[in-house]
Amino acid sequence: MPGALELLPTEQIELQRMLDLIREEFERFGFLPISTSAMELSEVLLTKSGGETERQVYLVQSTGARTQGKEPDLALRFDLTVPLARYVAEHEGELAFPFRRYQIQPVWRGETPQRGRFREFIQCDIDVIDRGKLSIRHDAEMPAVIAGIFTRLNIGDFTIRINNRKLLRGLLIDLGVEDPDRQTDVLRELDKLGRDGEQSVETALLDKGLSPEAASRLLQLAGRGSVRGDDAITLLESLPDANSLLVEGKTELLTVFALLAAQGVDPRKVALDVSIARGLDYYTGTVYETTLDSHPELGSICSGGRYDDLASLYTSSKLPGVGISIGLTRLFWQLREVGLVGQGSTTVRVLLTLLDDPGLTVTLGIARDLRAAGINTEVTLEAGKLSRQLRYADRAGIPIVVIAGEEERERGTVQVRHLPTQHQQEVSVTDLVTTIQELD
Amino acid sequence: MPGALELLPTEQIELQRMLDLIREEFERFGFLPISTSAMELSEVLLTKSGGETERQVYLVQSTGARTQGKEPDLALRFDLTVPLARYVAEHEGELAFPFRRYQIQPVWRGETPQRGRFREFIQCDIDVIDRGKLSIRHDAEMPAVIAGIFTRLNIGDFTIRINNRKLLRGLLIDLGVEDPDRQTDVLRELDKLGRDGEQSVETALLDKGLSPEAASRLLQLAGRGSVRGDDAITLLESLPDANSLLVEGKTELLTVFALLAAQGVDPRKVALDVSIARGLDYYTGTVYETTLDSHPELGSICSGGRYDDLASLYTSSKLPGVGISIGLTRLFWQLREVGLVGQGSTTVRVLLTLLDDPGLTVTLGIARDLRAAGINTEVTLEAGKLSRQLRYADRAGIPIVVIAGEEERERGTVQVRHLPTQHQQEVSVTDLVTTIQELD
Repeated sequence: MPGALELLPTEQIELQRMLDLIREEFERFGFLPISTSAMELSEVLLTKSGGETERQVYLVQSTGARTQGKEPDLALRFDLTVPLARYVAEHEGELAFPFRRYQIQPVWRGETPQRGRFREFIQCDIDVIDRGKLSIRHDAEMPAVIAGIFTRLNIGDFTIRINNRKLLRGLLIDLGVEDPDRQTDVLRELDKLGRDGEQSVETALLDKGLSPEAASRLLQLAGRGSVRGDDAITLLESLPDANSLLVEGKTELLTVFALLAAQGVDPRKVALDVSIARGLDYYTGTVYETTLDSHPELGSICSGGRYDDLASLYTSSKLPGVGISIGLTRLFWQLREVGLVGQGSTTVRVLLTLLDDPGLTVTLGIARDLRAAGINTEVTLEAGKLSRQLRYADRAGIPIVVIAGEEERERGTVQVRHLPTQHQQEVSVTDLVTTIQELD
Repeated sequence: MPGALELLPTEQIELQRMLDLIREEFERFGFLPISTSAMELSEVLLTKSGGETERQVYLVQSTGARTQGKEPDLALRFDLTVPLARYVAEHEGELAFPFRRYQIQPVWRGETPQRGRFREFIQCDIDVIDRGKLSIRHDAEMPAVIAGIFTRLNIGDFTIRINNRKLLRGLLIDLGVEDPDRQTDVLRELDKLGRDGEQSVETALLDKGLSPEAASRLLQLAGRGSVRGDDAITLLESLPDANSLLVEGKTELLTVFALLAAQGVDPRKVALDVSIARGLDYYTGTVYETTLDSHPELGSICSGGRYDDLASLYTSSKLPGVGISIGLTRLFWQLREVGLVGQGSTTVRVLLTLLDDPGLTVTLGIARDLRAAGINTEVTLEAGKLSRQLRYADRAGIPIVVIAGEEERERGTVQVRHLPTQHQQEVSVTDLVTTIQELD
């Protein structure tokens, strides 16, 4: 299918391992799973989208309904936030708050298919939602989860860049930009700093009516990029207490950095970055982006932030939240492009060969024992040449080949060949499970 | 969403455990994962559907394409067989045959929403596909996988009922029904035996032109229902070698039962059942159905069979296969209805309480240690009453509560309360991980 990342099994296993690891880490931090229907009401999705996304919503209609000339009233979700909002509103009375949910599911966008752009992609999201007010302390959980995941994924050093929209808006007010819409415009320009460079952004800021001094001060702050450890604290403390938004933003960031330290998050992996605005107006406080230190060109591989109200469309309860999202399909594709994943992998641990038909019964008995011990085992069911079966195991990446030829059967033994080392040993059938477990 | 099974997190965790167990068992038997796009070309799905399904195909179209007045050229898959066929044809040169794949993904059908009928449901499929010819021995792998899964799911005794369409067709020829279309009609009637009873099916068979003697002989065979162990072999051997189809069917079934024994599949869990035809013409040899002994009313919870050619629409290669499918969403719903699942479960093992704000740093440090040891831990981030936090843990099903109050912090200890037993002990912070691991 164009626009879908369909993998060979060995690649799928690598992707699946990443998904499993992400899920495991989400659960380690006490997040609970939900899974929602692929379809939402189209009117909701069309209201919640906008801009480019609005033309990319996939409408859904059964052939029966279409024949009757009806309009499509369903559509495929384009993110996991709209479904979360509906879900929380629907189940508000049954959930415990703060509600900590993770969700790992595909979403769909009618993109024009091109390299690295997908029409169907898996998102891995966590959010903490509370009613009325959500403690800022949860904002410090997100980078801890991100750090846990990307450390274990083992794809190189990374930096979680943290900022706060209140701080940015407070700074803008201090620089004379009081109108929220103008602030949004300015933040949108600032977001381009990494991509377009200082010169270009400065011109844009002056166009938006900033004074040269204001533009220069903003760019000086934002231009510092990732500021780590004590330097981040010093920078934050150096900012003037010019207005309540600025004070709030500072205080929140100082809390987040203090709690990151308390959680033992490696200080080299987190940074303050005043240039990060996250274009979306949706975010109102802390914002996050994550980049691979050796591959900044991949852009942010995990982003998110704090928002004021999740589900105003569905419920009168105010539901503030904070969350992050990993676009795993795109990330996997990118990592493969730069050679950080993609060697292929298999879930099969043992190939049980068959050299002659009379050996079938013994072979199936051995297979049963291996599987009962939790060892993933494939059995060759039609007898054939050993060399061919060894070549198959080698190509498929199966590390262990077990051979029960006529002589071995007479002796009650098998040959165990470990392909990575080419070491072969003859062991009693009764010792086979232990032998294989020790080859781990 | 109507027609979707959206669960609360505790239920979702139960469903997820079933999915994980099924995946684990598929992998144990050497099956490899694939994952395909939710969408296929609508023309293919409409060709491959038919009957009721044809009106239930969900067509998909982006808002942009709809605005341009285009016809929808994409649709959501309604099973995992059509996507498998396309996938195998597309990757034929890159796959090793026999290709053993598993696939666990949702499918969609535009059903009228009603109790126990879903518009979106998860299917768990395995298939073995070969080129040209697929050894009958693979037909004996399917019941071994089914037995492994349902034994571990622990939802009561079950019977895997096995038959063979060649045997049935051979029997019909022997009874004077030579025309394949009439045979299909007769098999369709026979399939209703469990539902409609012998009287009704006999009338239908006579209507289809069977002689009273033929109808009676067929019903006598089919009426025996599940025939186990040596009785199954005796029954098979008693059938006349009247024609080549009958002989083939007999031989195949005898092979399957012999290899099931060789694999150590519990003989009480498998049975020959000559009444099973699986309505679909798609199947050409072995067919399977699985029923729960205490809940026959749930119908077959895992079905499948052997087919001659998977992907004739896509490739000139002949690709015979054998496979089974579990409709997990429906099964989960059914099991919940009869009380076999649905108690709810959590992935969180420890709730780390917070009684006073000065304890936050120590608490976050403990959380880090627990998580580093692989223990799923939720932290209360705003200080509150212990009784409320204990009540929360109890309701959420979290088994262990850890308390680091002011006095404990001074002593370098924590209280560990095991909710199921109400046993509480004070241990040194350095012993906490071990203490919790021993509470398993």
